[in-house]
Amino acid sequence: MAETTSRRRGRGGGGAARRAERTAVRIETAKYIERNIPNFEILNEEALEIIENNAETVLEEVGVNFIDNPKALERWREAGADVVGERVRIPRGLARKLCETAPSQFTQHARNPEKSVVIGGRNLVLAPVYGPPFVRDIHGGRRYATMEDFNKFVKLAYMSKWLHHSGGTVCEPTDIPVNKRHLDMLMAHMTLSDKPFMGSVTDPSRAQDSVEMCEILFGKEFVQENTVMTSLTNINSPMTFDDVMMGALEVYAKNNQACIISPFIVGGAMAPVSVAGTLTQVLAEVLAGIAYSQLIRPGAPAIFGAFVTSIDMNSGAPTFGTPEAAHITYGAGQLARRLGVPYRSAGSFCGSKLPDAQAAYETANSLNMGLLSGVNFMLHSCGWLEGGLVADFEKFVMDADQLGVLHGLAKGVAYDENAQAMDAIREVGPGGHYLGCAHTQANFKDAFWKTELLDYKPFETWEDEGSRDTRTLAAQRVEHLLANYRQPELDPGIAAALSAYVEEKKASMPDAFM
Amino acid sequence: MAETTSRRRGRGGGGAARRAERTAVRIETAKYIERNIPNFEILNEEALEIIENNAETVLEEVGVNFIDNPKALERWREAGADVVGERVRIPRGLARKLCETAPSQFTQHARNPEKSVVIGGRNLVLAPVYGPPFVRDIHGGRRYATMEDFNKFVKLAYMSKWLHHSGGTVCEPTDIPVNKRHLDMLMAHMTLSDKPFMGSVTDPSRAQDSVEMCEILFGKEFVQENTVMTSLTNINSPMTFDDVMMGALEVYAKNNQACIISPFIVGGAMAPVSVAGTLTQVLAEVLAGIAYSQLIRPGAPAIFGAFVTSIDMNSGAPTFGTPEAAHITYGAGQLARRLGVPYRSAGSFCGSKLPDAQAAYETANSLNMGLLSGVNFMLHSCGWLEGGLVADFEKFVMDADQLGVLHGLAKGVAYDENAQAMDAIREVGPGGHYLGCAHTQANFKDAFWKTELLDYKPFETWEDEGSRDTRTLAAQRVEHLLANYRQPELDPGIAAALSAYVEEKKASMPDAFM
Repeated sequence: MAETTSRRRGRGGGGAARRAERTAVRIETAKYIERNIPNFEILNEEALEIIENNAETVLEEVGVNFIDNPKALERWREAGADVVGERVRIPRGLARKLCETAPSQFTQHARNPEKSVVIGGRNLVLAPVYGPPFVRDIHGGRRYATMEDFNKFVKLAYMSKWLHHSGGTVCEPTDIPVNKRHLDMLMAHMTLSDKPFMGSVTDPSRAQDSVEMCEILFGKEFVQENTVMTSLTNINSPMTFDDVMMGALEVYAKNNQACIISPFIVGGAMAPVSVAGTLTQVLAEVLAGIAYSQLIRPGAPAIFGAFVTSIDMNSGAPTFGTPEAAHITYGAGQLARRLGVPYRSAGSFCGSKLPDAQAAYETANSLNMGLLSGVNFMLHSCGWLEGGLVADFEKFVMDADQLGVLHGLAKGVAYDENAQAMDAIREVGPGGHYLGCAHTQANFKDAFWKTELLDYKPFETWEDEGSRDTRTLAAQRVEHLLANYRQPELDPGIAAALSAYVEEKKASMPDAFM
Repeated sequence: MAETTSRRRGRGGGGAARRAERTAVRIETAKYIERNIPNFEILNEEALEIIENNAETVLEEVGVNFIDNPKALERWREAGADVVGERVRIPRGLARKLCETAPSQFTQHARNPEKSVVIGGRNLVLAPVYGPPFVRDIHGGRRYATMEDFNKFVKLAYMSKWLHHSGGTVCEPTDIPVNKRHLDMLMAHMTLSDKPFMGSVTDPSRAQDSVEMCEILFGKEFVQENTVMTSLTNINSPMTFDDVMMGALEVYAKNNQACIISPFIVGGAMAPVSVAGTLTQVLAEVLAGIAYSQLIRPGAPAIFGAFVTSIDMNSGAPTFGTPEAAHITYGAGQLARRLGVPYRSAGSFCGSKLPDAQAAYETANSLNMGLLSGVNFMLHSCGWLEGGLVADFEKFVMDADQLGVLHGLAKGVAYDENAQAMDAIREVGPGGHYLGCAHTQANFKDAFWKTELLDYKPFETWEDEGSRDTRTLAAQRVEHLLANYRQPELDPGIAAALSAYVEEKKASMPDAFM
């Protein structure tokens, strides 16, 4: 696995430098995952064809609504759809035909070229949690998120080896006016990290701001010719495309920037209670959404999204890490591959209020399924808590450590001569042990995934050290990482231009908190 | 899913009976899992052939040791192996040929016929943790296990819907003499539960006692014609078969009882540090072991076992839920299917000292992999803690709840007309919701897996109820289940005969604690 490495250096010379070197924190970023293992194909050909056929029937007979968006209706009419009021009925095959111009994979550039990612194909790009209005940590409990929290999460994502992407709204900075916070969020991603990031979708004008800030960061021409943002445009399931999300999508597609077209499904509420029915609706929605992005600009990158949870039918609460969510995630991956576009799903999903065993079971179920279902872009891959209401600091680093397991799994099984280890088996023989043999000595350093968090110490040592549970260990890791954070370098001229842009924008309008 | 259900009944008549009925605990046992999903095949044909070829080379050139067992050496010599000292070199193809008489699946009978299990094929049978000398619970902490703890675990396994099997040494009852505890353990499985169980392997005479107690429970003739125990005979990896385990295997095979032939591997210590090398050794060991069982009695049921952990090369500690263990577990499943015998691997493995997030991540990784790798018999499927040193009461019910997720996953995706839900999609349409629609009403009861433990309540409710974490909820569930335990009925004559057997056996020898 190719890795880009930088090392925090001490500033002093001589002894101080050597001391600093000894206590330095290595900042490594793993290359995005290139799967060398098969996908798990849960649906057979017959089921896939039925679902695809039914999705076309839904588009043709039931249709989708484009709300408060006459221009969109006009575009659909021109493309050959049957438009009545805001309802768009799409003739069988038309949406899939339009999707053909969407690329099967694309590069999202980071300002540090070593951290650019290729989204699609057999790759998996991991990005942190998105959207929680609350944060939680072991010391301060649960509280509304602030910009200070946001900055901390961006720093933690930057420091996390297994995260390839800085994400977007890692938490909602509720202390900043709604109409201005996207500027501070983008500024944080652009200056506190050098990993790729997401743009704003809460208003078309904010999407436009995102593009303009990228033009400052990457250069205007570069942005028009390359993809530098992947943004999240949710579909209002069932089958409703609102003007805000579609307005943002229009801005991004026009500028060749990527969008995740993502049905937001709580099964039994926004989609049928059955897996096959949900997959049908998801496919119909994504077909319509990606087709629409291609009406804006053929070739604009678009991702097949599926945010899916099941529901506790007693309380109506969404549930996570469940078998039904897994079935849908596996199935949607197959549908995305047949459509020939990148796939977004899964994440560190859980319903638990605390980063406890429930949270970890649910999260591990979802992460494993995400890897095996062929997800190409995994938003929410760490830090998600309480159904997405909370971004949790300890869970962020706990999940981020588990993402290393996914990297290891995806490597697959080597079976070259060295991996066959026949010399070792001959050397050791019955009743011996392998700890000291030549093959072990030559291979042990890279043989096993290593945690940077979990505890494997003998019981007595663990007890002597205070019987710490995972959350306590994670809190210490959060503290350690933030204490050792060092900002990646950025051209001072660009930094100043970004600051000026943000200041000017903020000054141009009054604060709004709604 | 067919289920056998019994209901705890109140003893009084009238009002008391109705009250008892209202607070009754339903004791349901799910049928063993019959997979309706594919296996995950991580190795390609070329890799499988290389490993199978190399395993034959290991058996032919390196061989295996049968220790302190002249009769075994004699059997091997007669079968055509090259025996020098205790080393048995097996000509290419001979072991695989001998394995052909081992059944691809078999029924293990329970004394309650509704709880008999079929081990092999596409089935998965779940059994609890095996072997820990310590127990832990939230109130008493970590301590040596006693017979009282053992009985509690047997009761919990009996009460657990998703456990199909009562297991064997669910913990070591260290307060009972070593040479007598197998009698009390068997007595517990036979009288406190009606699920299938395992026999003793710590001495051939104790295996014989297990057979004799089963003859009392099931009838002598029934035992000779049917399999009523599945027992665990570990291989002393690398490639060593000791006289104790093989002595037990000989007793069981002779009596047509099933054995799991299980290499015990900490990768890098008892096997090569590479996955392909470990798989080669595991296959060679299992081939030799199952072949040997067929030399004792052709047709005796035998299971391809693989207990595999990776290792922390710094401390030498075993590690769990890792990618390398997953690779080996997936690969061994393929090798077992090609050999045509049932497969045992995976479990609720973790290295954590507490039933915390680490424990749950590691466990969920292993459980998911166990399902997808095609495991037929999963020992340790709940309750395992601290690398197997501890059986944890809370984790027992936490894991047991997650086993329900495996049942749900294994059901696969229905795509009949009802599952397609086209009427629902037509009925609801864009912008509607599915909560009240006819299809949801008709299907919601069975649509989603339901936890009996995890918390999905709104934050405020959860906080009002004391902000309980998973372990606290689990402790309450343990207490609730044990308080509502009711012993399954057993013919009093059989119960008395079993007691008399145990008393007589105990009286026949002095206590031994070594």
